[in-house]
Amino acid sequence: MIRLSDLPLREDLIGQEPYGAPQLDVPVVLNVNENPYPPSPAIRHEMAAAVVSLAGGLNRYPDREATALRSDLAHYLGHGLTAADIWVANGSNEVMSHLLTAFGGPGRKVLTFTPTYSMYPEYARNTCTGYVTVPRRADYTVDTELVLRAIAEHDPTLVLITTPNNPTGTAVDLDTIEAIAQGTDKLIVVDEAYQEFSSRPSALELLDRYPRLIVSRTMSKAFALAGGRIGYLAAAPAIVDACRIVRLPYHLSAQTQAIARVALAHSDELLAQVRALAGEARAFEAWARGRRYDVVDSEANFSLIGRFPDRHMVWQDLLDRGILIRETGPAGYLRVSAGTPHEMAILRSALDELSPKLEGNPA
Amino acid sequence: MIRLSDLPLREDLIGQEPYGAPQLDVPVVLNVNENPYPPSPAIRHEMAAAVVSLAGGLNRYPDREATALRSDLAHYLGHGLTAADIWVANGSNEVMSHLLTAFGGPGRKVLTFTPTYSMYPEYARNTCTGYVTVPRRADYTVDTELVLRAIAEHDPTLVLITTPNNPTGTAVDLDTIEAIAQGTDKLIVVDEAYQEFSSRPSALELLDRYPRLIVSRTMSKAFALAGGRIGYLAAAPAIVDACRIVRLPYHLSAQTQAIARVALAHSDELLAQVRALAGEARAFEAWARGRRYDVVDSEANFSLIGRFPDRHMVWQDLLDRGILIRETGPAGYLRVSAGTPHEMAILRSALDELSPKLEGNPA
Repeated sequence: MIRLSDLPLREDLIGQEPYGAPQLDVPVVLNVNENPYPPSPAIRHEMAAAVVSLAGGLNRYPDREATALRSDLAHYLGHGLTAADIWVANGSNEVMSHLLTAFGGPGRKVLTFTPTYSMYPEYARNTCTGYVTVPRRADYTVDTELVLRAIAEHDPTLVLITTPNNPTGTAVDLDTIEAIAQGTDKLIVVDEAYQEFSSRPSALELLDRYPRLIVSRTMSKAFALAGGRIGYLAAAPAIVDACRIVRLPYHLSAQTQAIARVALAHSDELLAQVRALAGEARAFEAWARGRRYDVVDSEANFSLIGRFPDRHMVWQDLLDRGILIRETGPAGYLRVSAGTPHEMAILRSALDELSPKLEGNPA
Repeated sequence: MIRLSDLPLREDLIGQEPYGAPQLDVPVVLNVNENPYPPSPAIRHEMAAAVVSLAGGLNRYPDREATALRSDLAHYLGHGLTAADIWVANGSNEVMSHLLTAFGGPGRKVLTFTPTYSMYPEYARNTCTGYVTVPRRADYTVDTELVLRAIAEHDPTLVLITTPNNPTGTAVDLDTIEAIAQGTDKLIVVDEAYQEFSSRPSALELLDRYPRLIVSRTMSKAFALAGGRIGYLAAAPAIVDACRIVRLPYHLSAQTQAIARVALAHSDELLAQVRALAGEARAFEAWARGRRYDVVDSEANFSLIGRFPDRHMVWQDLLDRGILIRETGPAGYLRVSAGTPHEMAILRSALDELSPKLEGNPA
């Protein structure tokens, strides 16, 4: 049996493990910021009807440009955007990979601000792009001065700013994004994967004035479509054209294009849940503050709470009770996705039962 | 309006165009080797039923390992393969990109034999892998001596052998593949995208004896699922593990996994068409030989015929008659995908009507 160590794996991949949070079948899953509400029966049946229809043409390649879907996404985002301003792929991780393939590569760098999304270094690694990080402020914010100083120091091709940030939930003000865009000619990618949950305005508002700004989004969270794998960006058509050069032809299947379009046609219904989920997260944070946990200000559908002297013990203890949360982020913190009211009640009870065992936890 | 030339596109991408054959809405489409037979109504409704079922969980991420699908693919391929020997992604172009990302990269090379599939250089370019080609023999075959000499000269990490080759349809004998595998310790990728149409045995037979051999397949052609975007490979589990390191997490959507599994459950029905389509291509070639066209020996669902003094004129003239074929391959040749008997009759009539205009065509 040949082993991986017998094979000519790229040197910088040696010893690496496939990325991914545990996929465990437990009653309460709050670890990957999924939307806990499945698509309604009406949406499910509309998706099936779309598949019956398109399956009659599945022997043919799909629309390589995904024009109808990009048009629907532009309509959803508003701000006068059209299909030419939109790129779409199998998850925002593929969108981000297209950007890094087009504008990164050997000898180039992407700059981001930690703690942040743990998958970014993998996108950089896969595309042979240098990955440079600068720490956020102590409260996990970034400000104009911090970002512009980091750009001057590292000279990246792309600057990646995540708002709300994952795993901290921290938002970046539009004024800050604008001041950064004014202060640099680098490409600025604003990753708004969780933007629909935020009370702050989107960087989409700045697109028409800053042509090197890119806003990345996903349908995984707000549209309850993590299984559907649809990510997209809004940017100047020239940036979309760069993605079109490096995308694999026919990268987006006919069924994915169709399912995304059904979900977008029901955006009102799906976005009503978004407000409920943001409320659930904020309520959990208020509760946690009341229990004297250290709670990071979040604008996303998840909460980061601490500090646990032994967070792994807490994570495992919750898992033993059938609750899966995420061991990620700054030392001593755990990330909790907003679930249903029932799931959050189970979590709160479990934390209260655990708290006497948490040395150093003041509750 | 910002232009692409204002942006920091990777130097080797400057001036490149997005890949792709024309997607034109004409009556007879014979240009991208699609299967002309859509999935049957029974399959379509089974796909829809699968989507209704999975859509209830679309808010959750899909199985990152696609284990059930990989198991079905292993069962389909036979040869004692199991899920651990299979990798699957959004089209064989993504499978190939995973291989090049894992085993290629800066300073490394992939070697292949021209004329061959026009998308390979793009996979290499995107993954920053050197792309080295060596011409096939005059009859478009490769033999052991030619391949081993090219390996010795260029020292690639990966050797890519396409059988049946695209766009020539040329098959490589199993004895040749085996002698190559015996003669090198390089990774050998045998791209069998069109293998189901061939009368020759598959390189799958060699997998258990040659652990550096990789057999790549697609569901686009034989399974009439070009729109579904499912490619896969069979290889040693260590090679699958390398792909798992570089794949984007959750790269394969729930709907794609489900639709592929429905098609695989109907492989008998779908593969019956494969035999008919291979017969259609061979019959077209016999006809073309009768008309004194130069016809390349093909084992695929397409035919390469020539030589046309002005192939573009012929291509355009056929298109004007509502027939789209492919202007690709060696100078003076055109590639024709096997269509339905009716479509092929239309094509034959059109070629006969054209032939008086084809200076140098002896028909």
